Amino acid sequence: MKKLKRSGRLVDMTHYLIQHPHQLISLRYFSERYQSAKSSISEDLTIVKEIFEQEGIGSLYTVPGASGGVKYIPTVVEKEAEAFIQEFCQELSDPERILPGGYLYMMDVLGAPQKMNEVGRLYASLFANEQVDAVMTVATKGIPMAYAVASFLDVPVSIVRRDHRVTEGSMVSINYVSGSSKRIQTMSLARRSLPEGANVLILDDFMKAGGTVRGMVDLLKEFRANVVGTGVLVESEDVEERLVEDYISIARLTEVSERERSIALEPGNYLTKLKEVKAHAHDLHEGST
Amino acid sequence: MKKLKRSGRLVDMTHYLIQHPHQLISLRYFSERYQSAKSSISEDLTIVKEIFEQEGIGSLYTVPGASGGVKYIPTVVEKEAEAFIQEFCQELSDPERILPGGYLYMMDVLGAPQKMNEVGRLYASLFANEQVDAVMTVATKGIPMAYAVASFLDVPVSIVRRDHRVTEGSMVSINYVSGSSKRIQTMSLARRSLPEGANVLILDDFMKAGGTVRGMVDLLKEFRANVVGTGVLVESEDVEERLVEDYISIARLTEVSERERSIALEPGNYLTKLKEVKAHAHDLHEGST
Repeated sequence: MKKLKRSGRLVDMTHYLIQHPHQLISLRYFSERYQSAKSSISEDLTIVKEIFEQEGIGSLYTVPGASGGVKYIPTVVEKEAEAFIQEFCQELSDPERILPGGYLYMMDVLGAPQKMNEVGRLYASLFANEQVDAVMTVATKGIPMAYAVASFLDVPVSIVRRDHRVTEGSMVSINYVSGSSKRIQTMSLARRSLPEGANVLILDDFMKAGGTVRGMVDLLKEFRANVVGTGVLVESEDVEERLVEDYISIARLTEVSERERSIALEPGNYLTKLKEVKAHAHDLHEGST
Repeated sequence: MKKLKRSGRLVDMTHYLIQHPHQLISLRYFSERYQSAKSSISEDLTIVKEIFEQEGIGSLYTVPGASGGVKYIPTVVEKEAEAFIQEFCQELSDPERILPGGYLYMMDVLGAPQKMNEVGRLYASLFANEQVDAVMTVATKGIPMAYAVASFLDVPVSIVRRDHRVTEGSMVSINYVSGSSKRIQTMSLARRSLPEGANVLILDDFMKAGGTVRGMVDLLKEFRANVVGTGVLVESEDVEERLVEDYISIARLTEVSERERSIALEPGNYLTKLKEVKAHAHDLHEGST
Protein backbone atom coordinates (compact mmCIF):
# COMPACT_ATOMS: atom_id res chain seq x y z
CA MET A 1 0.00 0.00 0.00
CA LYS A 2 1.14 3.50 -0.88
CA LYS A 3 2.26 5.68 2.00
CA LEU A 4 -0.70 7.75 3.09
CA LYS A 5 -1.03 11.18 4.64
CA ARG A 6 -3.14 11.64 7.75
CA SER A 7 -6.28 12.56 5.83
CA GLY A 8 -5.97 9.43 3.70
CA ARG A 9 -5.22 7.27 6.71
CA LEU A 10 -8.33 8.55 8.51
CA VAL A 11 -10.57 7.61 5.57
CA ASP A 12 -9.08 4.15 5.09
CA MET A 13 -8.88 3.44 8.84
CA THR A 14 -12.53 4.39 9.34
CA HIS A 15 -13.55 2.01 6.55
CA TYR A 16 -11.32 -0.74 7.89
CA LEU A 17 -12.62 -0.45 11.46
CA ILE A 18 -16.25 -0.43 10.33
CA GLN A 19 -15.64 -3.59 8.29
CA HIS A 20 -14.05 -5.31 11.30
CA PRO A 21 -16.25 -4.69 14.34
CA HIS A 22 -15.30 -6.42 17.62
CA GLN A 23 -11.92 -7.44 16.21
CA LEU A 24 -8.69 -6.48 17.92
CA ILE A 25 -6.49 -4.79 15.34
CA SER A 26 -2.87 -4.27 16.30
CA LEU A 27 -1.23 -0.87 15.99
CA ARG A 28 1.50 -2.67 14.09
CA TYR A 29 -1.03 -3.71 11.45
CA PHE A 30 -2.01 -0.09 10.75
CA SER A 31 1.57 1.05 11.08
CA GLU A 32 2.65 -1.38 8.36
CA ARG A 33 -0.44 -0.82 6.25
CA TYR A 34 0.26 2.91 6.07
CA GLN A 35 4.04 2.83 6.46
CA SER A 36 3.70 5.26 9.33
CA ALA A 37 5.11 5.40 12.83
CA LYS A 38 3.01 3.92 15.63
CA SER A 39 2.91 7.34 17.25
CA SER A 40 1.18 8.79 14.17
CA ILE A 41 -1.24 5.87 14.12
CA SER A 42 -2.03 6.51 17.78
CA GLU A 43 -2.82 10.12 17.00
CA ASP A 44 -5.03 9.05 14.08
CA LEU A 45 -6.92 6.69 16.36
CA THR A 46 -7.48 9.45 18.90
CA ILE A 47 -9.21 11.47 16.19
CA VAL A 48 -11.25 8.49 14.99
CA LYS A 49 -12.25 7.63 18.56
CA GLU A 50 -13.37 11.18 19.28
CA ILE A 51 -15.57 11.33 16.18
CA PHE A 52 -16.94 7.79 16.58
CA GLU A 53 -18.00 8.60 20.12
CA GLN A 54 -19.20 12.12 19.42
CA GLU A 55 -21.31 11.06 16.42
CA GLY A 56 -22.59 7.89 18.05
CA ILE A 57 -20.91 5.55 15.55
CA GLY A 58 -19.43 3.47 18.33
CA SER A 59 -16.66 3.11 20.85
CA LEU A 60 -13.01 2.53 20.15
CA TYR A 61 -11.27 0.52 22.85
CA THR A 62 -7.53 0.62 23.06
CA VAL A 63 -5.82 -2.43 24.48
CA PRO A 64 -2.33 -1.49 25.68
CA GLY A 65 0.78 -3.65 25.56
CA ALA A 66 2.77 -5.62 23.01
CA SER A 67 -0.21 -7.71 21.90
CA GLY A 68 -2.51 -4.71 22.18
CA GLY A 69 -4.35 -2.74 19.60
CA VAL A 70 -7.69 -1.21 18.96
CA LYS A 71 -11.23 -2.56 18.79
CA TYR A 72 -14.29 -0.94 17.27
CA ILE A 73 -17.55 -1.63 19.13
CA PRO A 74 -20.67 -0.47 17.26
CA THR A 75 -23.15 1.30 19.52
CA VAL A 76 -26.29 3.40 19.25
CA VAL A 77 -27.19 6.72 20.74
CA GLU A 78 -30.34 6.46 22.85
CA LYS A 79 -32.05 9.32 21.05
CA GLU A 80 -31.44 7.77 17.65
CA ALA A 81 -32.62 4.37 18.83
CA GLU A 82 -35.80 6.01 20.11
CA ALA A 83 -36.40 7.82 16.84
CA PHE A 84 -35.87 4.63 14.85
CA ILE A 85 -38.22 2.62 17.07
CA GLN A 86 -40.93 5.29 16.91
CA GLU A 87 -40.74 5.36 13.13
CA PHE A 88 -40.70 1.57 13.02
CA CYS A 89 -43.89 1.33 15.10
CA GLN A 90 -45.47 3.97 12.92
CA GLU A 91 -44.61 2.07 9.75
CA LEU A 92 -46.07 -1.17 11.08
CA SER A 93 -49.28 0.48 12.34
CA ASP A 94 -50.95 0.21 8.97
CA PRO A 95 -54.26 -1.72 8.76
CA GLU A 96 -53.17 -2.99 5.34
CA ARG A 97 -50.68 -5.15 7.20
CA ILE A 98 -53.29 -7.17 9.06
CA LEU A 99 -53.23 -10.80 7.97
CA PRO A 100 -55.65 -13.60 8.83
CA GLY A 101 -55.10 -14.89 12.37
CA GLY A 102 -53.91 -11.60 13.78
CA TYR A 103 -50.55 -11.83 12.09
CA LEU A 104 -48.74 -8.90 10.61
CA TYR A 105 -47.31 -8.54 7.13
CA MET A 106 -43.68 -7.59 7.76
CA MET A 107 -41.80 -9.03 4.77
CA ASP A 108 -41.18 -5.57 3.32
CA VAL A 109 -39.57 -4.44 6.55
CA LEU A 110 -37.61 -7.67 6.95
CA GLY A 111 -36.61 -7.37 3.30
CA ALA A 112 -35.07 -3.91 3.71
CA PRO A 113 -31.36 -4.40 4.40
CA GLN A 114 -30.76 -0.86 5.70
CA LYS A 115 -33.59 -1.28 8.19
CA MET A 116 -32.33 -4.67 9.31
CA ASN A 117 -28.84 -3.19 9.67
CA GLU A 118 -30.27 -0.61 12.03
CA VAL A 119 -31.98 -3.37 14.05
CA GLY A 120 -28.67 -5.24 14.00
CA ARG A 121 -26.89 -2.23 15.43
CA LEU A 122 -29.51 -1.91 18.19
CA TYR A 123 -29.06 -5.47 19.46
CA ALA A 124 -25.31 -5.55 18.89
CA SER A 125 -25.06 -2.38 20.95
CA LEU A 126 -27.04 -3.89 23.80
CA PHE A 127 -24.96 -7.07 23.89
CA ALA A 128 -21.64 -5.40 23.10
CA ASN A 129 -20.16 -6.23 26.51
CA GLU A 130 -21.52 -9.75 26.80
CA GLN A 131 -19.68 -12.84 25.64
CA VAL A 132 -21.65 -13.84 22.53
CA ASP A 133 -20.19 -16.70 20.47
CA ALA A 134 -23.06 -17.16 18.04
CA VAL A 135 -26.46 -15.87 17.05
CA MET A 136 -29.31 -18.31 16.48
CA THR A 137 -32.61 -17.97 14.69
CA VAL A 138 -35.25 -20.10 13.05
CA ALA A 139 -35.87 -20.14 9.31
CA THR A 140 -37.13 -18.16 7.47
CA LYS A 141 -38.12 -14.74 8.66
CA GLY A 142 -35.72 -14.41 11.56
CA ILE A 143 -32.71 -14.76 9.29
CA PRO A 144 -32.36 -11.15 8.09
CA MET A 145 -32.18 -9.63 11.55
CA ALA A 146 -29.98 -12.46 12.81
CA TYR A 147 -27.46 -11.72 10.07
CA ALA A 148 -27.50 -8.04 10.77
CA VAL A 149 -26.87 -8.56 14.48
CA ALA A 150 -24.18 -11.17 13.80
CA SER A 151 -22.48 -8.88 11.34
CA PHE A 152 -22.14 -6.11 13.93
CA LEU A 153 -21.01 -8.56 16.62
CA ASP A 154 -18.71 -10.47 14.25
CA VAL A 155 -20.07 -13.88 15.23
CA PRO A 156 -21.52 -16.75 13.16
CA VAL A 157 -25.23 -17.44 12.62
CA SER A 158 -26.89 -20.80 13.30
CA ILE A 159 -30.14 -21.37 11.48
CA VAL A 160 -32.70 -23.71 12.99
CA ARG A 161 -34.93 -25.46 10.46
CA ARG A 162 -38.54 -26.48 10.73
CA ASP A 163 -38.18 -28.94 7.85
CA HIS A 164 -35.82 -31.87 7.47
CA ARG A 165 -33.47 -31.19 4.62
CA VAL A 166 -30.93 -33.91 4.03
CA THR A 167 -28.17 -31.62 2.89
CA GLU A 168 -26.75 -30.62 6.23
CA GLY A 169 -25.49 -33.87 7.67
CA SER A 170 -26.47 -35.08 11.12
CA MET A 171 -29.12 -32.99 12.78
CA VAL A 172 -30.30 -32.57 16.34
CA SER A 173 -34.08 -32.36 16.51
CA ILE A 174 -36.56 -31.61 19.25
CA ASN A 175 -40.31 -31.42 19.44
CA TYR A 176 -41.94 -28.29 20.70
CA VAL A 177 -45.45 -27.00 21.16
CA SER A 178 -46.34 -23.94 19.18
CA GLY A 179 -47.73 -21.59 21.81
CA SER A 180 -50.50 -20.16 19.67
CA SER A 181 -51.70 -23.21 17.73
CA LYS A 182 -50.84 -25.71 20.48
CA ARG A 183 -49.63 -28.12 17.82
CA ILE A 184 -46.56 -30.29 18.26
CA GLN A 185 -43.86 -29.35 15.79
CA THR A 186 -40.25 -30.27 15.11
CA MET A 187 -37.19 -28.08 14.84
CA SER A 188 -33.68 -29.17 13.94
CA LEU A 189 -30.18 -27.81 13.87
CA ALA A 190 -27.19 -29.32 12.09
CA ARG A 191 -24.89 -30.89 14.67
CA ARG A 192 -21.85 -29.12 13.34
CA SER A 193 -23.44 -25.71 13.00
CA LEU A 194 -22.88 -24.87 16.66
CA PRO A 195 -19.96 -25.82 18.93
CA GLU A 196 -20.80 -27.34 22.33
CA GLY A 197 -20.97 -24.87 25.20
CA ALA A 198 -21.35 -21.79 23.02
CA ASN A 199 -22.88 -18.58 24.37
CA VAL A 200 -25.83 -17.89 22.13
CA LEU A 201 -28.04 -14.92 21.43
CA ILE A 202 -31.49 -16.04 20.21
CA LEU A 203 -33.28 -13.82 17.70
CA ASP A 204 -36.64 -13.96 15.95
CA ASP A 205 -38.88 -11.63 14.04
CA PHE A 206 -42.17 -12.21 15.85
CA MET A 207 -43.22 -13.69 19.16
CA LYS A 208 -46.71 -14.53 20.27
CA ALA A 209 -46.79 -17.03 23.12
CA GLY A 210 -43.10 -17.74 22.67
CA GLY A 211 -43.31 -21.41 21.71
CA THR A 212 -40.70 -21.07 18.99
CA VAL A 213 -38.24 -19.26 21.24
CA ARG A 214 -38.93 -21.81 23.98
CA GLY A 215 -38.13 -24.52 21.43
CA MET A 216 -34.83 -22.87 20.56
CA VAL A 217 -33.92 -22.66 24.24
CA ASP A 218 -34.63 -26.39 24.59
CA LEU A 219 -32.67 -27.17 21.44
CA LEU A 220 -29.70 -25.25 22.83
CA LYS A 221 -29.69 -27.52 25.87
CA GLU A 222 -28.88 -30.39 23.51
CA PHE A 223 -25.76 -28.46 22.54
CA ARG A 224 -24.95 -27.61 26.18
CA ALA A 225 -25.09 -24.02 25.05
CA ASN A 226 -25.88 -20.97 27.20
CA VAL A 227 -28.55 -18.48 26.28
CA VAL A 228 -27.06 -15.00 26.58
CA GLY A 229 -30.32 -13.31 25.67
CA THR A 230 -33.34 -13.28 23.40
CA GLY A 231 -34.35 -10.58 20.99
CA VAL A 232 -37.67 -10.39 19.17
CA LEU A 233 -38.37 -7.68 16.67
CA VAL A 234 -42.11 -7.57 17.37
CA GLU A 235 -43.92 -9.14 20.31
CA SER A 236 -47.65 -9.59 20.47
CA GLU A 237 -49.33 -8.52 23.67
CA ASP A 238 -52.39 -10.66 23.10
CA VAL A 239 -51.13 -13.74 24.91
CA GLU A 240 -52.76 -15.83 27.61
CA GLU A 241 -49.65 -17.54 28.84
CA ARG A 242 -46.19 -16.43 27.86
CA LEU A 243 -43.69 -19.27 27.58
CA VAL A 244 -40.67 -16.97 27.65
CA GLU A 245 -40.08 -14.34 30.31
CA ASP A 246 -36.80 -12.66 29.56
CA TYR A 247 -36.59 -11.12 26.10
CA ILE A 248 -35.91 -7.80 24.45
CA SER A 249 -38.38 -6.45 21.91
CA ILE A 250 -38.19 -3.50 19.55
CA ALA A 251 -41.94 -3.15 19.14
CA ARG A 252 -45.06 -4.46 20.83
CA LEU A 253 -48.27 -5.21 18.97
CA THR A 254 -50.90 -4.00 21.43
CA GLU A 255 -53.97 -4.24 19.27
CA VAL A 256 -54.93 -6.01 16.09
CA SER A 257 -58.45 -6.67 14.94
CA GLU A 258 -59.24 -8.25 11.59
CA ARG A 259 -62.88 -7.34 11.89
CA GLU A 260 -62.39 -3.70 12.77
CA ARG A 261 -59.25 -3.35 10.65
CA SER A 262 -57.52 -1.71 13.57
CA ILE A 263 -53.94 -2.09 14.62
CA ALA A 264 -51.63 -0.44 17.15
CA LEU A 265 -48.00 -0.83 18.07
CA GLU A 266 -45.90 0.76 20.77
CA PRO A 267 -42.18 0.58 21.53
CA GLY A 268 -41.09 -2.68 23.17
CA ASN A 269 -38.79 -2.90 26.17
CA TYR A 270 -35.59 -2.30 24.18
CA LEU A 271 -35.06 1.28 25.31
CA THR A 272 -35.56 0.37 28.97
CA LYS A 273 -32.94 -2.37 28.62
CA LEU A 274 -30.56 -0.03 26.82
CA LYS A 275 -30.85 2.50 29.65
CA GLU A 276 -30.13 -0.26 32.19
CA VAL A 277 -27.06 -1.42 30.27
CA LYS A 278 -25.77 2.14 29.89
CA ALA A 279 -26.35 2.93 33.57
CA HIS A 280 -24.54 -0.27 34.52
CA ALA A 281 -21.60 0.54 32.23
CA HIS A 282 -21.51 4.01 33.75
CA ASP A 283 -21.46 2.59 37.30
CA LEU A 284 -18.63 0.26 36.36
CA HIS A 285 -16.75 3.14 34.87
CA GLU A 286 -17.34 5.37 37.91
CA GLY A 287 -16.32 2.55 40.22
CA SER A 288 -13.05 2.10 38.41
CA THR A 289 -11.91 5.70 38.73
CA MET B 1 -24.15 18.37 15.06
CA LYS B 2 -21.05 20.13 16.34
CA LYS B 3 -18.96 21.93 13.77
CA LEU B 4 -16.21 19.56 12.68
CA LYS B 5 -12.69 20.09 11.43
CA ARG B 6 -11.58 18.42 8.22
CA SER B 7 -10.15 15.37 10.00
CA GLY B 8 -13.41 14.84 11.84
CA ARG B 9 -15.47 15.41 8.71
CA LEU B 10 -13.44 12.80 6.82
CA VAL B 11 -14.08 10.16 9.49
CA ASP B 12 -17.80 10.86 9.76
CA MET B 13 -18.26 11.24 6.00
CA THR B 14 -16.54 7.92 5.31
CA HIS B 15 -18.83 6.21 7.80
CA TYR B 16 -21.89 7.91 6.37
CA LEU B 17 -21.06 7.03 2.77
CA ILE B 18 -20.35 3.39 3.62
CA GLN B 19 -23.70 3.15 5.42
CA HIS B 20 -25.49 4.61 2.38
CA PRO B 21 -24.21 2.87 -0.76
CA HIS B 22 -25.86 3.73 -4.09
CA GLN B 23 -27.67 6.69 -2.54
CA LEU B 24 -27.32 10.17 -3.91
CA ILE B 25 -26.31 12.45 -1.04
CA SER B 26 -26.49 16.16 -1.70
CA LEU B 27 -23.57 18.45 -0.97
CA ARG B 28 -26.04 20.55 0.96
CA TYR B 29 -26.70 17.64 3.32
CA PHE B 30 -23.03 17.38 4.25
CA SER B 31 -22.66 21.14 4.29
CA GLU B 32 -25.45 21.43 6.87
CA ARG B 33 -24.38 18.35 8.78
CA TYR B 34 -20.92 19.80 9.35
CA GLN B 35 -21.78 23.49 9.22
CA SER B 36 -19.14 23.92 6.57
CA ALA B 37 -19.03 25.65 3.20
CA LYS B 38 -19.83 23.55 0.12
CA SER B 39 -16.34 24.30 -1.16
CA SER B 40 -14.80 22.64 1.90
CA ILE B 41 -17.14 19.66 1.51
CA SER B 42 -16.08 19.34 -2.13
CA GLU B 43 -12.44 19.26 -1.07
CA ASP B 44 -13.24 16.62 1.56
CA LEU B 45 -14.97 14.50 -1.05
CA THR B 46 -11.99 14.74 -3.37
CA ILE B 47 -9.83 13.23 -0.62
CA VAL B 48 -12.40 10.51 0.17
CA LYS B 49 -12.75 9.70 -3.54
CA GLU B 50 -9.00 9.39 -4.01
CA ILE B 51 -8.60 7.00 -1.08
CA PHE B 52 -11.73 4.98 -1.90
CA GLU B 53 -10.47 4.42 -5.43
CA GLN B 54 -6.83 3.90 -4.49
CA GLU B 55 -7.64 1.37 -1.76
CA GLY B 56 -10.33 -0.40 -3.75
CA ILE B 57 -13.14 0.54 -1.37
CA GLY B 58 -15.30 1.80 -4.20
CA SER B 59 -16.05 4.66 -6.53
CA LEU B 60 -17.44 8.03 -5.63
CA TYR B 61 -19.57 9.55 -8.36
CA THR B 62 -20.26 13.24 -8.30
CA VAL B 63 -23.49 14.41 -9.85
CA PRO B 64 -23.22 18.12 -10.72
CA GLY B 65 -26.00 20.69 -10.57
CA ALA B 66 -28.53 21.98 -8.08
CA SER B 67 -30.02 18.54 -7.40
CA GLY B 68 -26.59 16.98 -7.55
CA GLY B 69 -24.47 15.35 -4.94
CA VAL B 70 -22.30 12.35 -4.40
CA LYS B 71 -22.89 8.61 -4.61
CA TYR B 72 -20.76 5.83 -3.18
CA ILE B 73 -20.60 2.66 -5.31
CA PRO B 74 -18.95 -0.31 -3.59
CA THR B 75 -16.52 -2.16 -5.85
CA VAL B 76 -13.83 -4.81 -5.62
CA VAL B 77 -10.29 -4.87 -6.87
CA GLU B 78 -9.72 -7.81 -9.22
CA LYS B 79 -6.72 -9.06 -7.31
CA GLU B 80 -8.58 -9.09 -4.01
CA ALA B 81 -11.57 -10.83 -5.57
CA GLU B 82 -9.21 -13.46 -6.93
CA ALA B 83 -7.54 -13.99 -3.56
CA PHE B 84 -10.92 -14.29 -1.83
CA ILE B 85 -12.22 -16.80 -4.38
CA GLN B 86 -9.06 -18.91 -4.18
CA GLU B 87 -9.30 -19.05 -0.41
CA PHE B 88 -13.02 -19.79 -0.62
CA CYS B 89 -12.42 -22.77 -2.95
CA GLN B 90 -9.67 -23.98 -0.66
CA GLU B 91 -11.93 -23.78 2.36
CA LEU B 92 -14.70 -25.76 0.66
CA SER B 93 -12.31 -28.44 -0.69
CA ASP B 94 -12.46 -30.42 2.54
CA PRO B 95 -13.63 -34.06 2.32
CA GLU B 96 -15.36 -33.58 5.68
CA ARG B 97 -17.86 -31.42 3.82
CA ILE B 98 -19.14 -34.22 1.60
CA LEU B 99 -22.77 -35.01 2.37
CA PRO B 100 -24.92 -37.87 1.09
CA GLY B 101 -26.04 -37.27 -2.50
CA GLY B 102 -22.96 -35.32 -3.51
CA TYR B 103 -24.04 -32.24 -1.61
CA LEU B 104 -21.68 -30.00 0.24
CA TYR B 105 -21.88 -28.82 3.83
CA MET B 106 -21.70 -25.06 3.55
CA MET B 107 -23.70 -23.78 6.53
CA ASP B 108 -20.57 -22.60 8.33
CA VAL B 109 -19.57 -20.51 5.33
CA LEU B 110 -23.11 -19.23 4.78
CA GLY B 111 -23.29 -18.51 8.51
CA ALA B 112 -20.23 -16.26 8.53
CA PRO B 113 -21.43 -12.67 8.05
CA GLN B 114 -18.02 -11.26 7.12
CA LYS B 115 -17.65 -13.89 4.40
CA MET B 116 -21.14 -13.23 3.09
CA ASN B 117 -20.41 -9.51 3.12
CA GLU B 118 -17.42 -10.16 0.90
CA VAL B 119 -19.61 -12.20 -1.46
CA GLY B 120 -22.13 -9.38 -1.36
CA ARG B 121 -19.47 -6.89 -2.37
CA LEU B 122 -18.42 -9.13 -5.28
CA TYR B 123 -21.88 -9.32 -6.82
CA ALA B 124 -22.79 -5.71 -6.00
CA SER B 125 -19.62 -4.64 -7.74
CA LEU B 126 -20.45 -6.65 -10.85
CA PHE B 127 -23.99 -5.26 -11.08
CA ALA B 128 -23.11 -1.74 -9.90
CA ASN B 129 -23.99 -0.17 -13.24
CA GLU B 130 -27.13 -2.20 -13.96
CA GLN B 131 -30.61 -1.16 -12.95
CA VAL B 132 -31.40 -3.55 -10.11
CA ASP B 133 -34.64 -2.90 -8.20
CA ALA B 134 -34.65 -6.01 -6.03
CA VAL B 135 -32.75 -9.14 -5.18
CA MET B 136 -34.56 -12.46 -5.05
CA THR B 137 -33.66 -15.77 -3.47
CA VAL B 138 -35.29 -18.93 -2.22
CA ALA B 139 -35.45 -19.88 1.45
CA THR B 140 -33.38 -20.86 3.36
CA LYS B 141 -29.77 -21.03 2.42
CA GLY B 142 -29.74 -18.37 -0.27
CA ILE B 143 -30.89 -15.69 2.18
CA PRO B 144 -27.54 -14.72 3.73
CA MET B 145 -25.85 -13.93 0.43
CA ALA B 146 -28.98 -12.25 -0.92
CA TYR B 147 -28.99 -9.88 2.05
CA ALA B 148 -25.34 -9.10 1.69
CA VAL B 149 -25.71 -8.26 -2.00
CA ALA B 150 -28.88 -6.23 -1.36
CA SER B 151 -27.19 -4.33 1.41
CA PHE B 152 -24.36 -3.19 -0.90
CA LEU B 153 -26.81 -2.36 -3.71
CA ASP B 154 -29.33 -0.72 -1.35
CA VAL B 155 -32.30 -2.67 -2.73
CA PRO B 156 -34.93 -4.85 -1.04
CA VAL B 157 -34.86 -8.65 -0.84
CA SER B 158 -37.73 -10.91 -1.94
CA ILE B 159 -37.72 -14.36 -0.40
CA VAL B 160 -39.37 -17.19 -2.29
CA ARG B 161 -40.76 -19.96 -0.08
CA ARG B 162 -40.98 -23.68 -0.72
CA ASP B 163 -43.66 -24.07 1.95
CA HIS B 164 -47.03 -22.39 2.25
CA ARG B 165 -47.06 -20.22 5.30
CA VAL B 166 -50.30 -18.37 5.83
CA THR B 167 -48.73 -15.31 7.36
CA GLU B 168 -47.82 -13.42 4.24
CA GLY B 169 -51.15 -12.73 2.59
CA SER B 170 -51.89 -13.63 -0.99
CA MET B 171 -49.17 -15.64 -2.65
CA VAL B 172 -48.26 -16.37 -6.25
CA SER B 173 -47.24 -20.00 -6.67
CA ILE B 174 -45.80 -22.02 -9.51
CA ASN B 175 -44.79 -25.64 -9.95
CA TYR B 176 -41.31 -26.46 -11.04
CA VAL B 177 -39.27 -29.57 -11.63
CA SER B 178 -36.25 -29.97 -9.45
CA GLY B 179 -33.46 -30.62 -11.93
CA SER B 180 -31.64 -33.20 -9.89
CA SER B 181 -34.49 -35.16 -8.32
CA LYS B 182 -36.93 -34.61 -11.22
CA ARG B 183 -39.71 -34.15 -8.70
CA ILE B 184 -42.44 -31.58 -9.10
CA GLN B 185 -42.29 -28.98 -6.39
CA THR B 186 -43.98 -25.71 -5.55
CA MET B 187 -42.52 -22.31 -4.86
CA SER B 188 -44.40 -19.18 -3.79
CA LEU B 189 -43.81 -15.50 -3.36
CA ALA B 190 -46.03 -13.05 -1.50
CA ARG B 191 -47.88 -10.91 -4.02
CA ARG B 192 -46.89 -7.69 -2.32
CA SER B 193 -43.26 -8.56 -1.81
CA LEU B 194 -42.29 -7.53 -5.33
CA PRO B 195 -43.68 -4.69 -7.46
CA GLU B 196 -44.73 -5.52 -11.03
CA GLY B 197 -42.10 -4.92 -13.68
CA ALA B 198 -39.16 -4.84 -11.27
CA ASN B 199 -35.62 -5.55 -12.45
CA VAL B 200 -34.48 -8.48 -10.37
CA LEU B 201 -31.16 -10.09 -9.57
CA ILE B 202 -31.61 -13.79 -8.71
CA LEU B 203 -29.25 -15.30 -6.14
CA ASP B 204 -28.80 -18.76 -4.67
CA ASP B 205 -26.17 -20.63 -2.71
CA PHE B 206 -25.93 -23.79 -4.78
CA MET B 207 -26.91 -24.84 -8.29
CA LYS B 208 -26.91 -28.30 -9.73
CA ALA B 209 -29.13 -28.65 -12.79
CA GLY B 210 -30.63 -25.23 -12.14
CA GLY B 211 -34.24 -26.28 -11.53
CA THR B 212 -34.65 -23.91 -8.61
CA VAL B 213 -33.24 -20.94 -10.51
CA ARG B 214 -35.39 -21.90 -13.52
CA GLY B 215 -38.38 -21.90 -11.16
CA MET B 216 -37.53 -18.42 -9.90
CA VAL B 217 -37.26 -17.16 -13.48
CA ASP B 218 -40.74 -18.61 -14.21
CA LEU B 219 -42.12 -17.13 -11.01
CA LEU B 220 -40.77 -13.72 -12.00
CA LYS B 221 -42.78 -13.90 -15.23
CA GLU B 222 -45.92 -13.90 -13.07
CA PHE B 223 -44.78 -10.55 -11.71
CA ARG B 224 -43.86 -9.28 -15.19
CA ALA B 225 -40.40 -8.77 -13.77
CA ASN B 226 -37.12 -8.72 -15.69
CA VAL B 227 -34.18 -10.89 -14.74
CA VAL B 228 -31.08 -8.70 -14.61
CA GLY B 229 -28.80 -11.60 -13.80
CA THR B 230 -28.31 -14.74 -11.77
CA GLY B 231 -25.62 -15.38 -9.19
CA VAL B 232 -24.88 -18.75 -7.61
CA LEU B 233 -22.25 -19.09 -4.93
CA VAL B 234 -21.31 -22.65 -5.89
CA GLU B 235 -22.25 -24.47 -9.07
CA SER B 236 -21.88 -28.20 -9.54
CA GLU B 237 -20.25 -29.33 -12.76
CA ASP B 238 -21.74 -32.80 -12.59
CA VAL B 239 -24.88 -32.04 -14.57
CA GLU B 240 -26.36 -33.81 -17.57
CA GLU B 241 -28.60 -31.04 -18.71
CA ARG B 242 -28.31 -27.52 -17.39
CA LEU B 243 -31.64 -25.67 -17.20
CA VAL B 244 -30.03 -22.26 -16.85
CA GLU B 245 -27.42 -20.91 -19.21
CA ASP B 246 -26.51 -17.46 -18.06
CA TYR B 247 -25.30 -17.23 -14.48
CA ILE B 248 -22.32 -16.03 -12.49
CA SER B 249 -20.67 -18.39 -10.02
CA ILE B 250 -18.01 -17.79 -7.40
CA ALA B 251 -16.91 -21.43 -7.23
CA ARG B 252 -17.41 -24.58 -9.26
CA LEU B 253 -17.58 -28.04 -7.71
CA THR B 254 -15.67 -30.14 -10.24
CA GLU B 255 -15.42 -33.37 -8.33
CA VAL B 256 -17.16 -34.94 -5.40
CA SER B 257 -17.15 -38.62 -4.55
CA GLU B 258 -18.74 -40.00 -1.41
CA ARG B 259 -17.06 -43.35 -1.89
CA GLU B 260 -13.56 -42.04 -2.39
CA ARG B 261 -14.03 -39.10 -0.05
CA SER B 262 -12.59 -36.81 -2.68
CA ILE B 263 -13.65 -33.29 -3.51
CA ALA B 264 -12.36 -30.50 -5.72
CA LEU B 265 -13.45 -26.95 -6.41
CA GLU B 266 -12.16 -24.34 -8.78
CA PRO B 267 -13.06 -20.68 -9.28
CA GLY B 268 -16.34 -20.15 -11.13
CA ASN B 269 -16.82 -17.68 -13.96
CA TYR B 270 -17.04 -14.62 -11.69
CA LEU B 271 -13.59 -13.26 -12.47
CA THR B 272 -14.12 -13.61 -16.22
CA LYS B 273 -17.36 -11.64 -15.92
CA LEU B 274 -15.70 -9.00 -13.74
CA LYS B 275 -12.99 -8.53 -16.37
CA GLU B 276 -15.64 -8.17 -19.08
CA VAL B 277 -17.55 -5.58 -17.07
CA LYS B 278 -14.38 -3.62 -16.27
CA ALA B 279 -13.23 -3.70 -19.91
CA HIS B 280 -16.68 -2.51 -20.98
CA ALA B 281 -16.66 0.32 -18.43
CA HIS B 282 -13.18 1.27 -19.64
CA ASP B 283 -14.33 1.33 -23.28
CA LEU B 284 -17.28 3.51 -22.37
CA HIS B 285 -15.00 5.84 -20.50
CA GLU B 286 -12.49 6.03 -23.36
CA GLY B 287 -15.29 6.60 -25.82
CA SER B 288 -16.60 9.56 -23.88
CA THR B 289 -13.31 11.46 -23.80
